[in-house]
Amino acid sequence: MESIKLDTHGWEELVDITAEIRRIVKQSGVSDGLCHIWCRHTTAALTVNENADPDVKHDILLALSRIVSHDWPYLHSEGNSTAHVKSSLLCCELTLPVCDGDLALGRWQGVLFCEFDGPRTNRQIGVTVIPTR
Amino acid sequence: MESIKLDTHGWEELVDITAEIRRIVKQSGVSDGLCHIWCRHTTAALTVNENADPDVKHDILLALSRIVSHDWPYLHSEGNSTAHVKSSLLCCELTLPVCDGDLALGRWQGVLFCEFDGPRTNRQIGVTVIPTR
Amino acid sequence: MESIKLDTHGWEELVDITAEIRRIVKQSGVSDGLCHIWCRHTTAALTVNENADPDVKHDILLALSRIVSHDWPYLHSEGNSTAHVKSSLLCCELTLPVCDGDLALGRWQGVLFCEFDGPRTNRQIGVTVIPTR
Repeated sequence: MESIKLDTHGWEELVDITAEIRRIVKQSGVSDGLCHIWCRHTTAALTVNENADPDVKHDILLALSRIVSHDWPYLHSEGNSTAHVKSSLLCCELTLPVCDGDLALGRWQGVLFCEFDGPRTNRQIGVTVIPTR
Repeated sequence: MESIKLDTHGWEELVDITAEIRRIVKQSGVSDGLCHIWCRHTTAALTVNENADPDVKHDILLALSRIVSHDWPYLHSEGNSTAHVKSSLLCCELTLPVCDGDLALGRWQGVLFCEFDGPRTNRQIGVTVIPTR
Repeated sequence: MESIKLDTHGWEELVDITAEIRRIVKQSGVSDGLCHIWCRHTTAALTVNENADPDVKHDILLALSRIVSHDWPYLHSEGNSTAHVKSSLLCCELTLPVCDGDLALGRWQGVLFCEFDGPRTNRQIGVTVIPTR
């Protein structure tokens, strides 16, 4: 398993990690198969969405902040329950298709690391590439 | 990677693609392993849910329309921010188990392509089948 | 595919199944690869979140109950539409990384079976372990 480490700078932030994933896929030497990405944290997540217009990232964070209210009677004492909930809603792992030695993404798709409890240093993402045969 | 193409007919629509996935699994010759499904679009998604009573599909779209409001102050200028948000909430990829040369779904489970910004022509889904060994 | 069976005791409940998954991974003899987990039900789900403080589980169920209202005009006649919606929001499958013959989870991560329409007997989860090469 290869590893990506990154620091986040805001309380919430969507960070495009497509280039790092793509680099690991190319270095793996796998021509066709799957690339699995794993976020090792319970207050962050991974998602795929548009990476062309940065407003889409804004809108995703806006919507999640309206969907998951800070005002509900949470019990967890660390004050970051909304981050745990958002992590489960978006999911901490993704599997991407690999074709011809590269990620087979659609035209507008990018891979986004989702920080919901930042800023943090040393957020870690594991990447595993598996050939079809 | 095999490919499924489909046209959607409503603004939002859940389309059962179980039969197409099953056909690709059988043609792959893989007896036991995993089947990965990839939606190449950022305003659509994939999910597994009941395919017996069509009312369940209605209820999922109803709930998503209540969860993700059109009235929030989105910035993305194309007017389809709710579709991007729903795509991330449900996720654009699925991995399904393959046993004895077929999808190993539960009794009520079907695979649904989720259109959130239709109608569209030529929506594309990539399918990769990997054997256990 | 190995199988885990469990009974649930409440209407909604998050059950930590990390130990069972870990046991199956170790028995598989796979050193490095992926572990896929499949929930065979449309009113339950799987997620990864904190398994240290039980309050996090409470907060996830609380938030989901606020996000997905019982008061919307559902059509499905069984009265469990919120369970179907929550199943799609959290997803019925997970892929986990395997390293050195064990699940490669982060420090606070546990695998949770999510019951949304309990109590139920004989809930089934399928586990498939695939080596990297």
